[in-house]
Amino acid sequence: MNARTAFDDLFERRLTYPDFEPQARLARLVGLDVQKSRLSKILGLLVNSNGLEAWANRHHGGAQATLEAILRRPPLVVLAGDVGSGKTELAETIGDSVARQEGIDITLLPLSLSTRGQGRVGEMTLLLSAVFDYAFEQASRLKGGGGRSRGAIIMLVDEADALAQSRENAQMHHEDRAGVNAFIRGIDRLANARLPAAVIMCTNRLSALDPAVRRRAADVLTFDRPNDEQRRFVLQHLMSPLGINGPHLEALVAATGPVRGTRDYGFTFSDLTQRLVPSIILDAYPNSPVVGQRAIDIARSILPTPPFRDGEQR
Amino acid sequence: MNARTAFDDLFERRLTYPDFEPQARLARLVGLDVQKSRLSKILGLLVNSNGLEAWANRHHGGAQATLEAILRRPPLVVLAGDVGSGKTELAETIGDSVARQEGIDITLLPLSLSTRGQGRVGEMTLLLSAVFDYAFEQASRLKGGGGRSRGAIIMLVDEADALAQSRENAQMHHEDRAGVNAFIRGIDRLANARLPAAVIMCTNRLSALDPAVRRRAADVLTFDRPNDEQRRFVLQHLMSPLGINGPHLEALVAATGPVRGTRDYGFTFSDLTQRLVPSIILDAYPNSPVVGQRAIDIARSILPTPPFRDGEQR
Amino acid sequence: MNARTAFDDLFERRLTYPDFEPQARLARLVGLDVQKSRLSKILGLLVNSNGLEAWANRHHGGAQATLEAILRRPPLVVLAGDVGSGKTELAETIGDSVARQEGIDITLLPLSLSTRGQGRVGEMTLLLSAVFDYAFEQASRLKGGGGRSRGAIIMLVDEADALAQSRENAQMHHEDRAGVNAFIRGIDRLANARLPAAVIMCTNRLSALDPAVRRRAADVLTFDRPNDEQRRFVLQHLMSPLGINGPHLEALVAATGPVRGTRDYGFTFSDLTQRLVPSIILDAYPNSPVVGQRAIDIARSILPTPPFRDGEQR
Amino acid sequence: MNARTAFDDLFERRLTYPDFEPQARLARLVGLDVQKSRLSKILGLLVNSNGLEAWANRHHGGAQATLEAILRRPPLVVLAGDVGSGKTELAETIGDSVARQEGIDITLLPLSLSTRGQGRVGEMTLLLSAVFDYAFEQASRLKGGGGRSRGAIIMLVDEADALAQSRENAQMHHEDRAGVNAFIRGIDRLANARLPAAVIMCTNRLSALDPAVRRRAADVLTFDRPNDEQRRFVLQHLMSPLGINGPHLEALVAATGPVRGTRDYGFTFSDLTQRLVPSIILDAYPNSPVVGQRAIDIARSILPTPPFRDGEQR
Amino acid sequence: MNARTAFDDLFERRLTYPDFEPQARLARLVGLDVQKSRLSKILGLLVNSNGLEAWANRHHGGAQATLEAILRRPPLVVLAGDVGSGKTELAETIGDSVARQEGIDITLLPLSLSTRGQGRVGEMTLLLSAVFDYAFEQASRLKGGGGRSRGAIIMLVDEADALAQSRENAQMHHEDRAGVNAFIRGIDRLANARLPAAVIMCTNRLSALDPAVRRRAADVLTFDRPNDEQRRFVLQHLMSPLGINGPHLEALVAATGPVRGTRDYGFTFSDLTQRLVPSIILDAYPNSPVVGQRAIDIARSILPTPPFRDGEQR
Amino acid sequence: MNARTAFDDLFERRLTYPDFEPQARLARLVGLDVQKSRLSKILGLLVNSNGLEAWANRHHGGAQATLEAILRRPPLVVLAGDVGSGKTELAETIGDSVARQEGIDITLLPLSLSTRGQGRVGEMTLLLSAVFDYAFEQASRLKGGGGRSRGAIIMLVDEADALAQSRENAQMHHEDRAGVNAFIRGIDRLANARLPAAVIMCTNRLSALDPAVRRRAADVLTFDRPNDEQRRFVLQHLMSPLGINGPHLEALVAATGPVRGTRDYGFTFSDLTQRLVPSIILDAYPNSPVVGQRAIDIARSILPTPPFRDGEQR
Repeated sequence: MNARTAFDDLFERRLTYPDFEPQARLARLVGLDVQKSRLSKILGLLVNSNGLEAWANRHHGGAQATLEAILRRPPLVVLAGDVGSGKTELAETIGDSVARQEGIDITLLPLSLSTRGQGRVGEMTLLLSAVFDYAFEQASRLKGGGGRSRGAIIMLVDEADALAQSRENAQMHHEDRAGVNAFIRGIDRLANARLPAAVIMCTNRLSALDPAVRRRAADVLTFDRPNDEQRRFVLQHLMSPLGINGPHLEALVAATGPVRGTRDYGFTFSDLTQRLVPSIILDAYPNSPVVGQRAIDIARSILPTPPFRDGEQR
Repeated sequence: MNARTAFDDLFERRLTYPDFEPQARLARLVGLDVQKSRLSKILGLLVNSNGLEAWANRHHGGAQATLEAILRRPPLVVLAGDVGSGKTELAETIGDSVARQEGIDITLLPLSLSTRGQGRVGEMTLLLSAVFDYAFEQASRLKGGGGRSRGAIIMLVDEADALAQSRENAQMHHEDRAGVNAFIRGIDRLANARLPAAVIMCTNRLSALDPAVRRRAADVLTFDRPNDEQRRFVLQHLMSPLGINGPHLEALVAATGPVRGTRDYGFTFSDLTQRLVPSIILDAYPNSPVVGQRAIDIARSILPTPPFRDGEQR
Repeated sequence: MNARTAFDDLFERRLTYPDFEPQARLARLVGLDVQKSRLSKILGLLVNSNGLEAWANRHHGGAQATLEAILRRPPLVVLAGDVGSGKTELAETIGDSVARQEGIDITLLPLSLSTRGQGRVGEMTLLLSAVFDYAFEQASRLKGGGGRSRGAIIMLVDEADALAQSRENAQMHHEDRAGVNAFIRGIDRLANARLPAAVIMCTNRLSALDPAVRRRAADVLTFDRPNDEQRRFVLQHLMSPLGINGPHLEALVAATGPVRGTRDYGFTFSDLTQRLVPSIILDAYPNSPVVGQRAIDIARSILPTPPFRDGEQR
Repeated sequence: MNARTAFDDLFERRLTYPDFEPQARLARLVGLDVQKSRLSKILGLLVNSNGLEAWANRHHGGAQATLEAILRRPPLVVLAGDVGSGKTELAETIGDSVARQEGIDITLLPLSLSTRGQGRVGEMTLLLSAVFDYAFEQASRLKGGGGRSRGAIIMLVDEADALAQSRENAQMHHEDRAGVNAFIRGIDRLANARLPAAVIMCTNRLSALDPAVRRRAADVLTFDRPNDEQRRFVLQHLMSPLGINGPHLEALVAATGPVRGTRDYGFTFSDLTQRLVPSIILDAYPNSPVVGQRAIDIARSILPTPPFRDGEQR
Repeated sequence: MNARTAFDDLFERRLTYPDFEPQARLARLVGLDVQKSRLSKILGLLVNSNGLEAWANRHHGGAQATLEAILRRPPLVVLAGDVGSGKTELAETIGDSVARQEGIDITLLPLSLSTRGQGRVGEMTLLLSAVFDYAFEQASRLKGGGGRSRGAIIMLVDEADALAQSRENAQMHHEDRAGVNAFIRGIDRLANARLPAAVIMCTNRLSALDPAVRRRAADVLTFDRPNDEQRRFVLQHLMSPLGINGPHLEALVAATGPVRGTRDYGFTFSDLTQRLVPSIILDAYPNSPVVGQRAIDIARSILPTPPFRDGEQR
Repeated sequence: MNARTAFDDLFERRLTYPDFEPQARLARLVGLDVQKSRLSKILGLLVNSNGLEAWANRHHGGAQATLEAILRRPPLVVLAGDVGSGKTELAETIGDSVARQEGIDITLLPLSLSTRGQGRVGEMTLLLSAVFDYAFEQASRLKGGGGRSRGAIIMLVDEADALAQSRENAQMHHEDRAGVNAFIRGIDRLANARLPAAVIMCTNRLSALDPAVRRRAADVLTFDRPNDEQRRFVLQHLMSPLGINGPHLEALVAATGPVRGTRDYGFTFSDLTQRLVPSIILDAYPNSPVVGQRAIDIARSILPTPPFRDGEQR
């Protein structure tokens, strides 16, 4: 690892917005309007801080000092919540919304699992440094004048707890600790240079994140399991083409929610799309069509993924 | 380990279907019809996705978007359940069913225990990478045009928890963590290339699997201990040639089931075939024939294997 | 690391007082008058011990022996308290007050996170030795005659528990232990040379500090969450430019304090400035002005950071 | 360890049956008739499977498929039970019974403690591989035609839990895990080649054995503490030459059994032979003869070895 | 570390008695008369054993055998007690008393923290061996004839538990264990040579000392927190020059003692001198004189250091 | 450590019996008659097995088989009991009794603490192998014909638990495990060669000994705290020369025993000789004689060493 680590070792792939596919996926993410709005605002301000000043001038003349409280926040947002609650899906698609809103191109760089290294001393530090070097260089080219950029970079750290886990843990390995330090330095470096770059971390173990990382987060957005309305939207989208509608659909919505006296949680988004719908189809395939009552029976026989118990409030 | 690791270090052996022996073994696996059907459908779709489209066209015209929910799932199935519940037996024989159904040859590659390596840094990662390289290469040659392959590869990971154990465990060794990462990358690589290759993992500790591995599973099939009917089938097959039938056989079925007030679980499949029947034979051998009442007494004196307590629902 | 480690590897940056910016920040730190006064006195005496003798002569002639109890204390002060209670802010700005009071220049050197090293044997010891070598050399040049210096050095160790954690912990790594020893030697060396240099440690885990480090502390200043008056001051400063005053402001003060029967703690300083105010602004942006009632609703929906439970009294 | 490890590093010694000494020791092992019979049958079938077929033909014509359930079992037997219950004694002498019954020579190879190695990476794996290589080679020469061998090899693994302990244990060292894998491969290799070789494992911690090892065991024979009859036999054999008989002997039998309200377990076999009898003799030596009442008093003053609590049923 | 380690790496400094400064400090140590007397007798006998014989001849003719019980004890004394109870102060000054009593020079060598090394294998052993080599050589030159020495060496091991912690601790590192062994050998070597050298260990965790070390201790002197009389003496000494006397002083004595119903322990010696008095002075400085009632208020607002809970009686 | 390790690294010293000093010390060991007698018989038989045969011929003609139960026991005796109960004292002096009884010279070799090594891989194994090589060679020269030796070797392992601790402990280091194996091999080697050599292990943590070591022990002798008679003997021996007799002595005996309702254990032997008597003398020295009532007061003020709680019966 003497030479610069290659792009493929650092990132899983490169996504560019605007694009049709993420736009469609983002549109399908129902019930997350608060998170969508907030995240796109935060990211938008990183790219174009003029907007905020214009807003303040229009509504609150002379509030410049207060605005600084926002503009000086590090470009780090944490998406926290249960497995299958849509965190990663939002993180992978929100760039499209921002790109369209600001009229620029945005690049998403999901960190590769490889950046955790393989346990060699200093390896994770080197890899993370390379990650931030790359992002820094790319974002530097996109920085524009007058608080407005020509583009932006978003780095995505999925399952972030594995990377930036708490140094409070006494057993924590020096190697991991060094990695957390490298991560913090990378965030601070982006912040100090005021580059159009942001980092999104997804985690289902908010309390496992290193406090020094959490403290730097500009915002922590929380995600819950889908409620009735959200499940109905998803199920309708997938089951309607199979002819499941009306009372059958409502029964599916009920069967996938919390069950009084049995469990206090319902299906996750991915329980619906990855487990329930395929089970219904495979049950019918190859000889029968999908039938409403049978689909309901299958839904009742599947147990939703148990919630990850993290022991910490937002 | 500079050079490519040899086949013998990576896999225990190579099995090819269709073949008489697995066909017979699969036929003897009673009471697992749900699992058989589901697993052969999943594997069949990997080989020939045309089937699903034909089915949709026939029954649900225009449901293409919904079908994607199935076709995009990673080619990974987890078989979870108690020791001796038939997981491994099904995994080793289901290929025959798929091969006959689709009219192609299927190769089963059971991972060698050696792939866990011997604790040298980076070793497990190298071995698993070699495993997936081999499977990737083999499957690439089998890929056909038009959603239909000329053959398929199934990799079998028995006792998968030892290989892909949860990174939630704080004490987890970097070496193991790197191995899990290599495994995930391998799965993703097969999925992205849409090759006719699948991975079957067997485990009796579902909760010990790494969440990132479980999340990728297209399906998790669970296995329970045999019920009365299943035990009767097995015992009849083995004891009838020894002259044990009728009431004696029924008494054996009862003696190997749960016992009210004493234990809430009965014999596993392997308790029946590996422990009970040999005990009955060896007791009689070499001087006496097997006698019904004596066989029943022996069955009552044997305690079934205690269930593995995993602490997690399906 | 054969050659002397560079400044940039040891310290995050270099701050010099007096300066306008820290003066303004210090002025904004309301409700910490006791800590401000005490810390500036302690630091002032390090620079100019003549003051204390003059005071004693004026008020308590002949109390020279008693004064020694103060003057011989090691130049180490610990600031302990909850996350977001203003510890670091005070540590980064108090130098301005002392510099103005004594009419000299003061330099603040915040230790870099890098000084924790990356786990190589002996590395932390080398880094900390280099840190103290540098401070020793700088302070030596500033030492004046007659108990009065021409300037002073303040080293800041934020999140000090990570660096100087208790050797009582049986699992403590030798590497860390050696680092604590190097730290203690550095403190003692500054004390013995009676140089115009002090070390400020900030921690939210007072009990995690090594006893040998705590015992050397001249003083331990504790920080609590802001009370009503302090929160009112902060909120007025930030929200008044947005037009939030009077009853609305009071409602914000109440909403950010402890809530009877629900929680016994209120917002931290940083909860107010980093989370509440940005949330209020982003909620309104870009289309609406900030409105009082909506701001209050937002304040009620945010949970303050839970206190760090350290299990030890001052 | 480049060259092949020498015999002396792998095995403690080499015992050959039939021989007078083990014949006498086996005869003295009272109360273990079930275990003796079963173990000699299992080992006998490994050497001469013709016996079983002949039996089946005589009593159960056409039961060939059922016989396979026995003949395909791996050549591994586990002897489990308390310290001093006769496990090792039986394992070291049963070969004589089989040798005489089948009219062939049998060699017993007890694994040396050295095979656990000294903690060097890969060492245990190398040693165990060498062990099985040796046994494989020896047994290959003894394999005969027609299901009948000219001799047989028995490997004895005493205190087997130390060697093949459970991989369920999360703290398990990679080195140990690799050793377990090597052991399993060795067993499987012997089984696949259908060689006249068997492995006997003795353990007092059945639950500590690796599940993958236990699952391969053809049989698990359990050993309990001697009952009245067994203790009487042993004591008579040893104490009668010293003139202790009749009521005195009966009192010794009672004193070495469970004591109502005090303890629910009696003396182990080795408590009797290694501790009680020597204590009685040394008490009398050198000036007095052994006297009955005194012997009884001594027996009452000795506490039997506490049972090893394993927490698992057979 | 090939060459002999330098003095500065082994000891913090060198103190020689008699001297004015330790004499004054020893005089100020009130309430420790029992410990002073006992420690000076033990050390005195190491230097001049003639005294004991003379005493025995005078009072108990012929008790030579009994005297051996004292004279053969290893030259190791443990001072055990709470933080701030005066252990170290006594250890650093008692040499003056012995030096004056016996009319010789005594050298105190406090072990450097560096002797704990930095975790390199064998390092602590080497350092401790060098420590004892040095002491052995120095003391050899001072040994006189006829049971009377020309001088003496006292080694001081402060915070001894960190150095000689219990080997009972299963997690203890081999490196530490080797260090304990080196320490024991050093003590034994001094004892066997009957040199005028002693080791004083100070610890606030008596139970953490290695049993093999404790067993060698000629005496274990325990230290408690100051009682009313002792606190009065200390406070009068420091506060009287500031004009605090009479009822105000008594109120300070009461405020620094145990408080019924609140806490069962009072201030330590160092709580009084290092925390209370400086707080009172800094509160008044620079504008006001110290005032009695304000001093009492301050005393009431300070919490004494919590006792170290060691869980073991003397 | 390529060459043979020197004697001084392996053993603390070499003691030869018969000698006056151990004879006197052994005579002072009151209340241990059972242990003395038993240990001298066991050791005597190792040197001269003719004695046992002669005894059997005289009293129990034809009991040769029973005698083998004693003569075949490994030459290992464990002395187990509380700190200060006289284990080590007996182990260091019993050789004199055996030497005089058998009319030969006996050499005692106490293992050095160094044999535990300093944690280097393989070091403890090498050192222990060297220890047994040395003992083996020495004992071989002493072996005589006809069951009678010309001398004998006794190895003493004090604090044996540190060396031979239980492999049951899952955390046990491979290095330690290898050391236990080396120890067991050494014992077995001496036993097989029937050399005039024995090993005495002293421990206060019987349950911490490795089971494989304990199982090999020919005998486990337990030691308790001194009862009234034993304390009286010791105190009389030491205090009578100081003029303490009669009622004063009885009061000392009572004060050093268990105290009803306060503690259920009395003083250990070493509490009496190492702590109580020196405290009484130093209290009187240098100006007063020892006075009875004062001695009793001192005895009442001293707390005996708390028993080591091992949690295991004999």
